[in-house]
Amino acid sequence: MNARGGIDLGGTKIQAVIVNSRNRVLGEARGPTPTTGGPADVAAAMATILEEAVAAAGVEVDSLVGVGVGSPGEVDAAAGTVAQARNLPDWEKAFPLGPRLSKSLGAPVAIGNDVQVATDAEFELGAGEPYRSLLGVFWGTGVGGGLILDGKPWTGRGAAGEIGHMVVKRGGAHCPCGRYGCLEAYAGRGAMEARARRAVKDGEKTKLFKIMESKGKTRLASGVWAKALRDGDELAEQLIDRAVEALGAGVASAVNLLDVEAVVIGGGLGVRFGAPFAERIKYAMAPHLFVSDRPPKVHVASLGDLGGAIGAALLVSSGNGRGAKPRPRNARARKPSAARARA
Amino acid sequence: MNARGGIDLGGTKIQAVIVNSRNRVLGEARGPTPTTGGPADVAAAMATILEEAVAAAGVEVDSLVGVGVGSPGEVDAAAGTVAQARNLPDWEKAFPLGPRLSKSLGAPVAIGNDVQVATDAEFELGAGEPYRSLLGVFWGTGVGGGLILDGKPWTGRGAAGEIGHMVVKRGGAHCPCGRYGCLEAYAGRGAMEARARRAVKDGEKTKLFKIMESKGKTRLASGVWAKALRDGDELAEQLIDRAVEALGAGVASAVNLLDVEAVVIGGGLGVRFGAPFAERIKYAMAPHLFVSDRPPKVHVASLGDLGGAIGAALLVSSGNGRGAKPRPRNARARKPSAARARA
Repeated sequence: MNARGGIDLGGTKIQAVIVNSRNRVLGEARGPTPTTGGPADVAAAMATILEEAVAAAGVEVDSLVGVGVGSPGEVDAAAGTVAQARNLPDWEKAFPLGPRLSKSLGAPVAIGNDVQVATDAEFELGAGEPYRSLLGVFWGTGVGGGLILDGKPWTGRGAAGEIGHMVVKRGGAHCPCGRYGCLEAYAGRGAMEARARRAVKDGEKTKLFKIMESKGKTRLASGVWAKALRDGDELAEQLIDRAVEALGAGVASAVNLLDVEAVVIGGGLGVRFGAPFAERIKYAMAPHLFVSDRPPKVHVASLGDLGGAIGAALLVSSGNGRGAKPRPRNARARKPSAARARA
Repeated sequence: MNARGGIDLGGTKIQAVIVNSRNRVLGEARGPTPTTGGPADVAAAMATILEEAVAAAGVEVDSLVGVGVGSPGEVDAAAGTVAQARNLPDWEKAFPLGPRLSKSLGAPVAIGNDVQVATDAEFELGAGEPYRSLLGVFWGTGVGGGLILDGKPWTGRGAAGEIGHMVVKRGGAHCPCGRYGCLEAYAGRGAMEARARRAVKDGEKTKLFKIMESKGKTRLASGVWAKALRDGDELAEQLIDRAVEALGAGVASAVNLLDVEAVVIGGGLGVRFGAPFAERIKYAMAPHLFVSDRPPKVHVASLGDLGGAIGAALLVSSGNGRGAKPRPRNARARKPSAARARA
């Protein structure tokens, strides 16, 4: 049945899916990303979670055509290595994630950039399917971006899509990346949390951290922000307004440069906040769009949380049974009834 | 000999060239753009200037394979129309520039976006020749941009490349386009002149307008800025520093998004200021580049003032003698000894 695996390696969780040749999701599993140890421990956790997905799908690991991985950090797809994955434990140097996983799973493994594969998934199977050009904006702990131009992923020299580090305010806020005025310095969940913590230190009132504790979290997860907004928390509203304004300016800048047909908003916050916030971002883009009479379409990522893992599975070509190889860049996958229905 | 014409239609001047099948410049002519009348008067001036270039080249108009035009405004290449050319007199509605010129010249005419054809020229024949991906930045009255990605022009839905209207400072300076915080609001010669005039009204001292008068100009042309910098004029230095900082942030943002191999700086100010300023822009980009250990190459446009007209001539395919048609997008033109030598 030519089943393939896909793993989305995130800073907080690992999501695995098994899909069939029509990209229908047969099974899935998720678990926390190890926060201690090193790359080998992360690889071991990935293998375990993939095996859980395999069990949920009712297939055998050794029947998989291959497994794709969407990874943060610097990915060398040819070598199967990942370096500089700064949200992952002790992962600075290049680690042979592909070969290591391939050995423990007994299946070929292909590795791609996490944000780009999530964009590819939305393009092939999700909200981006009607378009030939689109910008994926992944609004979560950071702000990542992926590009499809003329029906193909655009990765530049390997590091394209860093919309989170476009400058929206020269001399502006300090970004977790160390620079100033980046979009992510205003809109990234990490930067917003740092700002909320400083505000509390400065005596401002907010329910954000109480909500966090009541949810048993140690970080201001997307659900914490959503609850604080529902409760009318003023600081949360201020910080989210500021994030939306920054996203409007940054995304409009990208559209002015590239004139893509559509923008797909994903990521933890993007998916959690959904259509009303996609609408707010669209509204915040409007004053900055150079060609204002035909703005791009703005959609929420329709594959939701599973988009990254499904996109990773797309790295593996289905059907030849001879192993993982990069998907031909101009091939469109078949329409995915189930994958879409899950979103 | 398969000669082709190229016309660069600018807000202040019209530049025409005649090139042979190897893109060697055989003759050129230039003249002022009419500031009164309407599109038909501009078209008539273009035809006259092209005929002067034809005479300089020692060929006959009716021997031309075709004529290409690089135009501002909204270009419909298929229909040969130009609309919304706001720097040109009374040119809001779509005007059939292609058919009109074709009739008066007796040769097929192809029309493209002025900035994109100048970028194409640098890519095919100029400073961008060694690369497969590049960003052209045209720093003049406004700040325009053109993109080559994977060896082909990227124009989006027809309006890509508006790097001048990327937001570098949310809530920042008022841009001639009516928006706020655009790169052009800081770096465009028009915006800089407006700011200099306000500064003088506010009692600031500057030699800028004396230099302008002594050069017989009514505008702060590129040469006026260059002379003021040579004379150590403080206001000119401040405004140019501010422009360079904004260009650094805007161009770095574009590079973070696209990860192109090279940036080519052209336009009136870009060509006038040359390599030392390309170096300054590169330096101003550095603090904003996400992948800081392999910045893109930064070059001055090597075709200089003629790049736009030569790029326009590239819109016409050479050699088949059956009329103007769009150049195949993945074809590289031959190396141009003379075109390069002229730069």
